[in-house]
Amino acid sequence: MSFDRTKIRWNGWGWAAHKDDIGAHEAIWTWLASELVMPALLATPARPLEELTLHPSALSDEDRKGLRGIVGADSVRDDAYERAFHALGRSYYDLLRLRAGDLSTAPDAVVYPRATKEVLGVLAFAAERAIGVIPYGGGTSVVGGVTAARGKFTAAITLDMSAMDRLIDVDPVSGTATAEAGIYGPALEKALQAKGFTLGHHPQSFEFSTLGGWIGHSGVGQGSNRYGRAEDWLVGAKLATPRGLLSTGDFPASAAGPQLKDLVVGSEGIFGVITEATVRVHALPEASDYRGYLFRDFASGTAAVRKAMKDGIAATMLRLSDASETHFYRAYGQIGKRRTFAARLADLYLKIRKFDNKACVLIAGFEGNQSEAEAERKRFAAVARKHGALALGRNVGERWRQGRFHAPYLRDPLLDRGVGVDTLETAASWSKLDGLYAVTYGALEKAILETVPRDGARGIVMCHLSHSYLDGASLYFTTIFPRALDGDIAQWKTIKKAATDAIVANGGTLSHHHGVGEDHVPWIAQEKGELGVDILRAIKSALDPAGILNPGKLLPQ
Amino acid sequence: MSFDRTKIRWNGWGWAAHKDDIGAHEAIWTWLASELVMPALLATPARPLEELTLHPSALSDEDRKGLRGIVGADSVRDDAYERAFHALGRSYYDLLRLRAGDLSTAPDAVVYPRATKEVLGVLAFAAERAIGVIPYGGGTSVVGGVTAARGKFTAAITLDMSAMDRLIDVDPVSGTATAEAGIYGPALEKALQAKGFTLGHHPQSFEFSTLGGWIGHSGVGQGSNRYGRAEDWLVGAKLATPRGLLSTGDFPASAAGPQLKDLVVGSEGIFGVITEATVRVHALPEASDYRGYLFRDFASGTAAVRKAMKDGIAATMLRLSDASETHFYRAYGQIGKRRTFAARLADLYLKIRKFDNKACVLIAGFEGNQSEAEAERKRFAAVARKHGALALGRNVGERWRQGRFHAPYLRDPLLDRGVGVDTLETAASWSKLDGLYAVTYGALEKAILETVPRDGARGIVMCHLSHSYLDGASLYFTTIFPRALDGDIAQWKTIKKAATDAIVANGGTLSHHHGVGEDHVPWIAQEKGELGVDILRAIKSALDPAGILNPGKLLPQ
Repeated sequence: MSFDRTKIRWNGWGWAAHKDDIGAHEAIWTWLASELVMPALLATPARPLEELTLHPSALSDEDRKGLRGIVGADSVRDDAYERAFHALGRSYYDLLRLRAGDLSTAPDAVVYPRATKEVLGVLAFAAERAIGVIPYGGGTSVVGGVTAARGKFTAAITLDMSAMDRLIDVDPVSGTATAEAGIYGPALEKALQAKGFTLGHHPQSFEFSTLGGWIGHSGVGQGSNRYGRAEDWLVGAKLATPRGLLSTGDFPASAAGPQLKDLVVGSEGIFGVITEATVRVHALPEASDYRGYLFRDFASGTAAVRKAMKDGIAATMLRLSDASETHFYRAYGQIGKRRTFAARLADLYLKIRKFDNKACVLIAGFEGNQSEAEAERKRFAAVARKHGALALGRNVGERWRQGRFHAPYLRDPLLDRGVGVDTLETAASWSKLDGLYAVTYGALEKAILETVPRDGARGIVMCHLSHSYLDGASLYFTTIFPRALDGDIAQWKTIKKAATDAIVANGGTLSHHHGVGEDHVPWIAQEKGELGVDILRAIKSALDPAGILNPGKLLPQ
Repeated sequence: MSFDRTKIRWNGWGWAAHKDDIGAHEAIWTWLASELVMPALLATPARPLEELTLHPSALSDEDRKGLRGIVGADSVRDDAYERAFHALGRSYYDLLRLRAGDLSTAPDAVVYPRATKEVLGVLAFAAERAIGVIPYGGGTSVVGGVTAARGKFTAAITLDMSAMDRLIDVDPVSGTATAEAGIYGPALEKALQAKGFTLGHHPQSFEFSTLGGWIGHSGVGQGSNRYGRAEDWLVGAKLATPRGLLSTGDFPASAAGPQLKDLVVGSEGIFGVITEATVRVHALPEASDYRGYLFRDFASGTAAVRKAMKDGIAATMLRLSDASETHFYRAYGQIGKRRTFAARLADLYLKIRKFDNKACVLIAGFEGNQSEAEAERKRFAAVARKHGALALGRNVGERWRQGRFHAPYLRDPLLDRGVGVDTLETAASWSKLDGLYAVTYGALEKAILETVPRDGARGIVMCHLSHSYLDGASLYFTTIFPRALDGDIAQWKTIKKAATDAIVANGGTLSHHHGVGEDHVPWIAQEKGELGVDILRAIKSALDPAGILNPGKLLPQ
């Protein structure tokens, strides 16, 4: 397999060897406690794996022998680390359970196929033996997409695709590349860049997520305005199903009926296992320019992004933080630093220009050849200026770029100190966006206030608009709040329900890029309609008649 | 309904009152006969409707009463004109049959619903009474998409959507519009343009095709490089099915599972009837610039279009004719005209510059605000120059624009004179395009030579590349050939089979924008795979358990 799973944390984010770079900064914790209006933060360490007892694997010797016959003995694992690692994804809800030592969803074995025909073999075998199968890429789902739930079966195995990690082919004329689906972000980009190309798909999970995972949950990268969503860059896929292999073709466009690749995108492993994908790639951009702008408020920033989309300005990224997020990152960045004269001068300038605590930072990225990137950047700068923004220069942009995959690493040290942090996201058309923002923000604040462990404590709710379209944009909310230690799962459920109810009632989609998983299933019929759910069920029955694939995800049981 | 069907030809193209503007130009016919190496053209008029006898309507009095109860007595028609008009679409194959008086596929009645609930009522009634239902927009299908086939039923009705033709709403902030699906192209654009917007979807059938039809067959307009395919501009749709109404939502993007709107696009009426759609619209472009370029050959023109796509040049249209099409339109345009001194000078210049009979014309269109259109045009001009092209100026572009919907009108006068004309199209990735072009071209030439009515006669095969993508482009072939009058349907079938076999064997899709209909069904399993066909069948069963919708289209029986 691409790399040893024990090098990644089984109950947290990222490399096991990653050094916690904020734990020792006491000033941060003092500041955070005061922001949350808590007298002090707590020590809430995770339980170590050694302390925990896993339920015995429910696979029979015959099951195990059968699987080994298909993929080889080395590729069927059931040691404690493998099972614990694959028990859940990496959502806040997952971490609460993993840290508490709840491994009830540990799979009965983890299987690492090396070829499409091995995947087909495992699926046929599992269907015959009534074993649940959980397709697994990097396992970074934050919506319960890889929970090794058994469903109606007595055993479940996780099919970890990370050993299928080859770049198969690059077609430089067409500008397409074909790779095995288990390839991780960095490996894929490295292989493509060696040939002068990039897919340009950089989600926050980039280091630990896979090509197949990106397609399976309909993901976006941070540069989606230029490089598109998975549905945009996917040309075709191979989907291994219990009924055989589906190949969706590799046409640039087609009117030969509904396009089957659109059913692979977002299928979250319930129809089959993505084993290969052909994707559109771009020549490596010769220029890349990320800069900051400061808007007077969220509304004027939103209006500027909308105008840029209407004018067809070719940005790579336009990421607008609301006032709360702007304030949070500014304050966080200043902790323990001496206030320089220049910084104080800048503050004074902002005051004179009447930028107050409603001010919002936007990071705008442009890539392409030198003249194109420069021209588009200037077009956006003019739009920003017309909407009252101040140009903050490249430093802000470059700082954002350097830290672009860092945020998830902050969660574990927060969880260690009694602080919860969760994210959720949605998208809506421009005319609904302001209302959706206000109502969801309010619902999150209220639910946190109702569930904080002590009177007077509060949470932090912040948001950014980070992916924009001709007709609308996404909103991404982050919440930081004191954990209700006697019931932090109930607390999470209360907050999640309040926010999701607000989203679906106000014109937002259940998810813009995280997916449905287990967590959004209670609302899926509201979004798709009963008839829509029936369609998805019908497709599943056609491909997976025994229902072994990813039990409990995407569709109501 | 939006307009009286008797104003449109039942067995040909366009307005009944349209004056045939080439019939009287004897020079054209003399020239065409010589091009086809025929001693003379023939007189092969169509049979008038008055001469023909229609099979009696198979609907019972009870059926008719039931339908009238749902939509009103005025909205159930079964006079000869209505039935003949709706018997078939407008492909060459359809015209051969209509002109010969074959009305065996005339529907047993034509129903004009005025609201979604009427459509739902008709579908429920038809399912209960086992009556086939053919959803019908403008009826301009060229792949047998609206043939009123009865399938396994004893009766079939056509559901003509043209009475549902309202623009329901425009959301200027989001840049979206919602309209009833039966609205015709010109009415939709007129209503949108009155509010400062355009959908920008202009297929050649624009005057006689509808919003629902465009979505149902996954269409493209001539300006698709800017305005996108139906799948790109469709935000959401209402699909009336025998099992109720499916609403696909109206999000700018979503990761909440596979997107159901993608199943509506290209569904060709087999899953349900599109009754409403919300679409992305654009501000009316302030500038519009169409110009011609002359490339030395098809390969250098193709390379220039590919380069433009890779560089992200925002063209509205790049339409490259091959040498044959370039020659044909040039010769056609010069018939009966005096050769001016300027024209002869231009010919001399081309000769000096070594442009020979391999030269290919490209029309490049740019729209948007003045500076944007100008900037993109210049970027393309530079690419064209680098690929050896000569700029031909705006006249060529404007002439193309003026005639953009005219070509289908030429078919009837040709058919009147023993000349067949058909079109077919495909798309493939850039690296397959040259091979696909050569093999398909060769297959068409060969099949025509094998089926011409006399030794020595020949056909004309021409092609253009008209819609381009990052990873590939479409090819659109036109054939003109002497009809084998004793077997012109067999002739068409031979030519069609030869070309389609060549396309699917060489990496092309069955259709880039015409759809599948009845004509491409024999190849659909080759493109989608058996499992892919099963998926589409499963969706159909979920929405249309009785199988009443559009029998014989898209899926093998």
